[in-house]
Amino acid sequence: MIRVAILGATGYTARVLLELLLRHPEVEIRALTTRQDTRPHVAEVHPILRGRLDLELENLSLAEVAQRADCVFGCLPHGASAAAVAELLAAGCRVVDFSADYRLDDPKVYAQWYGVEHPDPQRMPETVYGLPELYREAIRGAQLVANPGCYPTSAILALAPLLKAGVIAPQGIVIDSKSGASGAGRSPKPHLHFPECNENLTAYGVGQHRHTPEIDQILSDWATATTRVVFTPHLVPMDRGILTTAYADPAVEIDAQGLLDVLRAQYQEEPFVRVVDHLPTTKNVVGANFCDVTVRMVRGKVVTISVIDNLMKGAAGAAVQNFNLMYGFSEGTAL
Amino acid sequence: MIRVAILGATGYTARVLLELLLRHPEVEIRALTTRQDTRPHVAEVHPILRGRLDLELENLSLAEVAQRADCVFGCLPHGASAAAVAELLAAGCRVVDFSADYRLDDPKVYAQWYGVEHPDPQRMPETVYGLPELYREAIRGAQLVANPGCYPTSAILALAPLLKAGVIAPQGIVIDSKSGASGAGRSPKPHLHFPECNENLTAYGVGQHRHTPEIDQILSDWATATTRVVFTPHLVPMDRGILTTAYADPAVEIDAQGLLDVLRAQYQEEPFVRVVDHLPTTKNVVGANFCDVTVRMVRGKVVTISVIDNLMKGAAGAAVQNFNLMYGFSEGTAL
Amino acid sequence: MIRVAILGATGYTARVLLELLLRHPEVEIRALTTRQDTRPHVAEVHPILRGRLDLELENLSLAEVAQRADCVFGCLPHGASAAAVAELLAAGCRVVDFSADYRLDDPKVYAQWYGVEHPDPQRMPETVYGLPELYREAIRGAQLVANPGCYPTSAILALAPLLKAGVIAPQGIVIDSKSGASGAGRSPKPHLHFPECNENLTAYGVGQHRHTPEIDQILSDWATATTRVVFTPHLVPMDRGILTTAYADPAVEIDAQGLLDVLRAQYQEEPFVRVVDHLPTTKNVVGANFCDVTVRMVRGKVVTISVIDNLMKGAAGAAVQNFNLMYGFSEGTAL
Amino acid sequence: MIRVAILGATGYTARVLLELLLRHPEVEIRALTTRQDTRPHVAEVHPILRGRLDLELENLSLAEVAQRADCVFGCLPHGASAAAVAELLAAGCRVVDFSADYRLDDPKVYAQWYGVEHPDPQRMPETVYGLPELYREAIRGAQLVANPGCYPTSAILALAPLLKAGVIAPQGIVIDSKSGASGAGRSPKPHLHFPECNENLTAYGVGQHRHTPEIDQILSDWATATTRVVFTPHLVPMDRGILTTAYADPAVEIDAQGLLDVLRAQYQEEPFVRVVDHLPTTKNVVGANFCDVTVRMVRGKVVTISVIDNLMKGAAGAAVQNFNLMYGFSEGTAL
Repeated sequence: MIRVAILGATGYTARVLLELLLRHPEVEIRALTTRQDTRPHVAEVHPILRGRLDLELENLSLAEVAQRADCVFGCLPHGASAAAVAELLAAGCRVVDFSADYRLDDPKVYAQWYGVEHPDPQRMPETVYGLPELYREAIRGAQLVANPGCYPTSAILALAPLLKAGVIAPQGIVIDSKSGASGAGRSPKPHLHFPECNENLTAYGVGQHRHTPEIDQILSDWATATTRVVFTPHLVPMDRGILTTAYADPAVEIDAQGLLDVLRAQYQEEPFVRVVDHLPTTKNVVGANFCDVTVRMVRGKVVTISVIDNLMKGAAGAAVQNFNLMYGFSEGTAL
Repeated sequence: MIRVAILGATGYTARVLLELLLRHPEVEIRALTTRQDTRPHVAEVHPILRGRLDLELENLSLAEVAQRADCVFGCLPHGASAAAVAELLAAGCRVVDFSADYRLDDPKVYAQWYGVEHPDPQRMPETVYGLPELYREAIRGAQLVANPGCYPTSAILALAPLLKAGVIAPQGIVIDSKSGASGAGRSPKPHLHFPECNENLTAYGVGQHRHTPEIDQILSDWATATTRVVFTPHLVPMDRGILTTAYADPAVEIDAQGLLDVLRAQYQEEPFVRVVDHLPTTKNVVGANFCDVTVRMVRGKVVTISVIDNLMKGAAGAAVQNFNLMYGFSEGTAL
Repeated sequence: MIRVAILGATGYTARVLLELLLRHPEVEIRALTTRQDTRPHVAEVHPILRGRLDLELENLSLAEVAQRADCVFGCLPHGASAAAVAELLAAGCRVVDFSADYRLDDPKVYAQWYGVEHPDPQRMPETVYGLPELYREAIRGAQLVANPGCYPTSAILALAPLLKAGVIAPQGIVIDSKSGASGAGRSPKPHLHFPECNENLTAYGVGQHRHTPEIDQILSDWATATTRVVFTPHLVPMDRGILTTAYADPAVEIDAQGLLDVLRAQYQEEPFVRVVDHLPTTKNVVGANFCDVTVRMVRGKVVTISVIDNLMKGAAGAAVQNFNLMYGFSEGTAL
Repeated sequence: MIRVAILGATGYTARVLLELLLRHPEVEIRALTTRQDTRPHVAEVHPILRGRLDLELENLSLAEVAQRADCVFGCLPHGASAAAVAELLAAGCRVVDFSADYRLDDPKVYAQWYGVEHPDPQRMPETVYGLPELYREAIRGAQLVANPGCYPTSAILALAPLLKAGVIAPQGIVIDSKSGASGAGRSPKPHLHFPECNENLTAYGVGQHRHTPEIDQILSDWATATTRVVFTPHLVPMDRGILTTAYADPAVEIDAQGLLDVLRAQYQEEPFVRVVDHLPTTKNVVGANFCDVTVRMVRGKVVTISVIDNLMKGAAGAAVQNFNLMYGFSEGTAL
């Protein structure tokens, strides 16, 4: 049994993670942390877990966490997370970090997009990006895994194989993403007030969303040249689900069937990526760890469409998949 | 032209009221107030009004409001509203008050449900309750009208005629209401955060909702005996609309057709109440000032079903209807 | 391993049932039936199951079904179901029947509400009603279990213990239920067309819903007198979830705490009923097999509020719970 | 008073059109047609209009329509519409046609995208495209106006001024549009069944949507070269509203401010286009005839974002705007 802890266990990702971990036969949930000192029961924070988990959220020191847990899932904000991760690793814990702190390789890019200096820059380039479909071998046995962002997962799974195969051009990629509101987190904000968000559609963070450099970096990793994407996220009035429509220029003469073949070749053995002929819809992946993806050729432009559940394959599901790889369990356990 | 002002013009009711007043041929909007000192343009506060109204929200004294406006629509919280109303009336303004301050007749009941002493108790019993279908003559020419609550409007329009006709018993009435989220106002709150409120259904304020004594009082006014209702409001994941299902015991031998006849007799000349044979739905009244109502007899119990748009017939539409009556305009102007 | 089949496997209940059965360690899914002859793959009918179950839907005879399966889940319409059930039982299968055919004891009541004569009337009174919280011992080892209706489950779990304890009166009970749209099934209908159903709220089947006699019968079973409820269902713009607000008169002097104590005494050992102090919300049970329930006393009226996921505790979850009891597995397996 | 008729008055566009026409001081609604012979009252077809319009839908011949009406709004399907339009014009009526039949200039393009030969090809190139912001002078006094498609309106209003000013390249334009479900019409279909469409997001008609050649044609009209756009529509779980995000390459050195200046110069006198600095949202235009639009420069790509209500500026609102221009009324009457 692996003893696990969750740092910052009050949000939606932590809740879904707990639902998955409760099903995992090799996991014992030993600690949940919060910055509050009131020791709320998990059933108060996540009423859906009432009667399923009897644990309090505690304001624990990292030393206490490290004593109780072998593996720590970090749900802290960026910056705060890096500080905790370094100490937990030093204490012998393994860590799956949901924050952005170890996704990027380059401290300068981090500083530019996140507005702060990284507290642990030397560990950045050596940390594996937790997308098993692309970095499985490095994840196996890793001490620290940077769990990917939700938008990047949806975009990268569609585009990386096409870049790797050299069939689309690394320049001029446009990524138009649409996400349900749970991706914005659990804190009430005016634009997420129900009568504002419901029956409404909006673009946000145009040209400024922090997932941009993450997509750039991973796509560049698989492309023959550095990639700088144009990324536009949109907020859709639904709870869960991301649909990403990406546009790229072909780099070779190829048709839709040829493009589908590339995706199928990449993913034929993958348990959680389904290359489909039809246009995928978010509802077919919500609650599951799948990414459904297809590709079309429209008037000379390559158009990929991919869907995930932002809280599953885009967050907690991916984390459990990574955890399973780290510890040598069957990759789909509890998923 | 009647010069009008709105006190506390930042909320949803004020926005819908502005949309109606902009269509009113006899109205000139002269002042919008806020407690902020930043003088935001109405288009910043209500972006839907951009290009339709060129006015700033101002932190005005009541004296300044009274100088600019003949008629004032009060959208202040209870307590604050009464203080303002007294001064505005003294300055010669007419007032349509959206707060609960002048709906109840009895200061003791007010203190019990609102938790504060009423600052202007003697004016309470003499103020007309602004439901034109029941109190039209008193509204004509009134200086002050208490605009009804949204839930009470939906319940009273269904039940008052049946009580007045003596066909249902005044005791044991159960009112089960369901409302869209705009009724909760514009301030973000955890339970109205989109991922919490969406795809969710909940009862709230069971036995404690402040609309209870208002329903009691008006129904008692039309019944042969004092009525004390059991009122349960529910929050439904949609923007606008209230559906109220009410249950009462018959007081005489009567069937559904007889009950419908009572409603039709009451409302046959009414422009904004539609007695229907089918089961009414909120979508057929959203954006309009109608109340659709029907009645059934189920196993010896009288069941009424009524729907309104909480922001129209339940708030701003009723206010404009009252305004038209107060000034002698055609009752449906701008509606 | 228990070999199972699903009759009529195209609907929402069958889909959720498949998701649960796929997680069940003692189940092998062997046959899915449809009246179509095209042998569609389950991934075409339920795209969410793509890559998780490799099986075709087949137009099988009951004899073929009985050969392949030990236990059959029947998702056929009423009438059709009874005919199939008799044959399957004769062939040695056990059956969990989702239809209404074996819920009622009295063929005359069935004929009155369903408009047809029951094809297998003598089996009606001897079939157990599959609500484990009330009939667990009879379910253990049963050959046939009638899986309860969704609305009845939500109402009965709240009211039966109060009737059994004699603290509420069996007469005059009002049940006001609100359900998400998945309860209406998978066939497109005008009132379920998205632009009609969305942002809309309506009552339907007032006084005529077929779940009425089912509620009557089970409540009467636990009451000191025959119960005839007034039942009003409503359609709410959300996918899943039922909230039932029920109103009853107290039969003894009792307060809210006393009523809660009765519920807690009944359900203290139950894995899937959570008696809560707060007002329950559907979102806390969606995707889970729980019923959350509370009770209040309002102006002398007992008000219960209970929530379930109509597709889980109201259908597929309850079926798996029954299946586990029938075969002696741990009751919560796969739930 | 202009006597008007609506052909095919059962859909959502006709309903919204009726709501607008009822407010129009110069309009008398004289005939509503349907292919049914049952003469349903308009209140049965559009319950929201109960008590506001007392008219039956009739299966009228075009000759009868022409006798009753001066101006006809055609809501017939493509193909059927052209046949009717020719006869109505010959009978002296003016026509605003909601179908696609007279939007395209080239019968070959029509045949290619709509799969049928156009029955009235010579009238195609001479018919004005009813987008007042671009073709106002030709609309004034026209006998026939082709009311634009909803998606094209949202895309063209954002892009045409930039093409006209020569600041974006006519090649390589990507248009990623997202629409509420009312755009799909009133007929129930499986993918619009509430439990399928709700909480779901999907792309559809990728590379095949019939609004593509319409966008091509109008943009080409204002560009220095023929434009062939990549157009991807998406279905969003909400009733009304379109948000279009378009991507183009700059043709000159220009920044976001320069692009905004181009839009502002084009639209400064326009009553129904609001060029905004913030990112526009659909909720601020739903129920109104506005298009809100902005533009950004992201990593060398021009990104426009525009929103409309698909049933207003995208259909019925535009039609009334056109009607007002055709008859010389103030352009915003009833809007």
